[in-house]
Amino acid sequence: MQRATPQEFSRVLSSMCTEPHPAARTAAERFLATNPGDPGTYETVVALEDEAVSTLGAVAGLAEPTDYITSDKTEANIQAMRIARDRADTSKPDVVAPESVHFSFHKAADVLGFDLRTTPLDAYRADTDAIAERVDADTVAVVGVAGTTEYGRVDPIPELAEIAADAGTLFHVDAAWGGFYLPFTDHKWNFSHADVDTMTIDPHKLGQAAMPAGGLLARSEGFFEPLAVDTPYLESPAQTSLTGTRSGAGVASAAAAMDELWPAGYREAAAVADENATWLADALSERDYRVVTPELPVVAAAIGEEVFAALRDAGWRISHTGRGELRVVCMPHVTREMCREFVADLDRIREHHT
Amino acid sequence: MQRATPQEFSRVLSSMCTEPHPAARTAAERFLATNPGDPGTYETVVALEDEAVSTLGAVAGLAEPTDYITSDKTEANIQAMRIARDRADTSKPDVVAPESVHFSFHKAADVLGFDLRTTPLDAYRADTDAIAERVDADTVAVVGVAGTTEYGRVDPIPELAEIAADAGTLFHVDAAWGGFYLPFTDHKWNFSHADVDTMTIDPHKLGQAAMPAGGLLARSEGFFEPLAVDTPYLESPAQTSLTGTRSGAGVASAAAAMDELWPAGYREAAAVADENATWLADALSERDYRVVTPELPVVAAAIGEEVFAALRDAGWRISHTGRGELRVVCMPHVTREMCREFVADLDRIREHHT
Repeated sequence: MQRATPQEFSRVLSSMCTEPHPAARTAAERFLATNPGDPGTYETVVALEDEAVSTLGAVAGLAEPTDYITSDKTEANIQAMRIARDRADTSKPDVVAPESVHFSFHKAADVLGFDLRTTPLDAYRADTDAIAERVDADTVAVVGVAGTTEYGRVDPIPELAEIAADAGTLFHVDAAWGGFYLPFTDHKWNFSHADVDTMTIDPHKLGQAAMPAGGLLARSEGFFEPLAVDTPYLESPAQTSLTGTRSGAGVASAAAAMDELWPAGYREAAAVADENATWLADALSERDYRVVTPELPVVAAAIGEEVFAALRDAGWRISHTGRGELRVVCMPHVTREMCREFVADLDRIREHHT
Repeated sequence: MQRATPQEFSRVLSSMCTEPHPAARTAAERFLATNPGDPGTYETVVALEDEAVSTLGAVAGLAEPTDYITSDKTEANIQAMRIARDRADTSKPDVVAPESVHFSFHKAADVLGFDLRTTPLDAYRADTDAIAERVDADTVAVVGVAGTTEYGRVDPIPELAEIAADAGTLFHVDAAWGGFYLPFTDHKWNFSHADVDTMTIDPHKLGQAAMPAGGLLARSEGFFEPLAVDTPYLESPAQTSLTGTRSGAGVASAAAAMDELWPAGYREAAAVADENATWLADALSERDYRVVTPELPVVAAAIGEEVFAALRDAGWRISHTGRGELRVVCMPHVTREMCREFVADLDRIREHHT
């Protein structure tokens, strides 16, 4: 019998994942011993994957989505870049992206062998001029981020889509984290707003599914064709996923969470997250910290290393931005009460340190 | 509430995965909402991963293993080939492997951009002469399989290791399925039997862990260094896994299953699987089918397409080898009773068809 216990979420402010919705947990437990990567054997979970894909399309403005539930955003981003590389005709592929892209694109560059060209930001968002300047004849994809990991910003997706279209390259949107929040904002980010080809959008983040359940959407089936690999001993057609055996728990829980929460539940969760992020940003501003005003519910503030360390010692799971600011992600498990306790601890620590 | 139900295992003869051991299921459910890919936030599951890696090393004859629990064998095989590619100094990398290698190597070849050279077999096993002939100055890895997917055969691992050593390339063993069976045989397959550099060995197959829990072992930490990618906003060192967010359920259940079953439980399961495979092979031979004598507990027999289809219609989850034979994998959930029912159905169908 294992004595270790999982962490509680009552002090987790650093994660882009969260406690699964109860319906998602139930589904994950029921479908724990299923493998959607082997549809000839595990048939019923495949039907749930179709259901999940269909709702994911609705979330992202795509009437007839092609897609699958990936292990995570890294698999989805690698696969999108693999599609881009394999569609293009160059031996020196490059990808142009704002420097706010997730580190999975750096991983994808190493794995797939392309040159990742990152461009400086303008007020935390992609600078379209800088992007356009770096695109050349070997560019296989332009990437935009709809909800950056560090500051929760949304790139100018329609403008980036035009740059990609002019260059004849694939346009990929990474909405892994933002995708279940953005439908309740005025942002232009999805397939119905711009000529998006592929999108990463993760049920196991704001979608409240159990891990592992990322999502990769493509405008049409043709995008997946170059990825097909024959699967001799499986009673199913070729496989296009990056991984082989996949988590039925993740797939079933993604279907269950979206069935339960789309759209009303997600709308409500987005409003709560928003209020908490604003409350926390205000509380930090009042204490004279430099706060990056939240757009999506991520709060960044320069609180200094000593205070940061003391908060970690007090049990708070918090993380840094690359520039060293405190970074708090207001996920569904983050309540106002948690925010109050966090600020109370902060005040105690400040008193002690001054 | 989802109405779909997962398949039962009472007619599953096609899968290399199985019902998780009860301890593995409990652990998976407890650690469902944890992400070992973010060790700064989810600390306790990381300790379980260390435990799992340590036992995995014991299973594979490696005293001080470096490793991580992958999503599946495909991730592990891709990562091993990525290590091989990145360590070598060639712009035209190739990998030499017997044609019995799992299709994940074909996927890896496309993803990573190497030339996969497969060689003909000798009695279902790698032909060492054929392998040696294909190795050249651009070869970055030689691959051996310890328990092939289709016929459960073990390649001559020590001989292949020597070929790789002579050529100065990495030597990888794919023991994804066989790894929890082979310790109870006389086969030479692991790190203590030969100069193996990396190995795929999956807890979620004969290890009886819940999916997704593959495993990648390397002889020393240095092998993972070329894979490291910076992870700015995670409170942890660089990430070497292929995926980012990973399944804590898979990791915790791998640790729990191995804690429970290594070595006595696995020895017992191997003996039962062996007896069932022999019983089934005998039953099929008695009925005048051409049977490939099982070495590891996979039974292949040429029963004809009509009978195969009728068995699928009767609810049996069975699959084909690439050459069209029936293929049955005697996993821990496969009981003698199931084998008897299967053969009884087969007899009914034969009577009907003759």
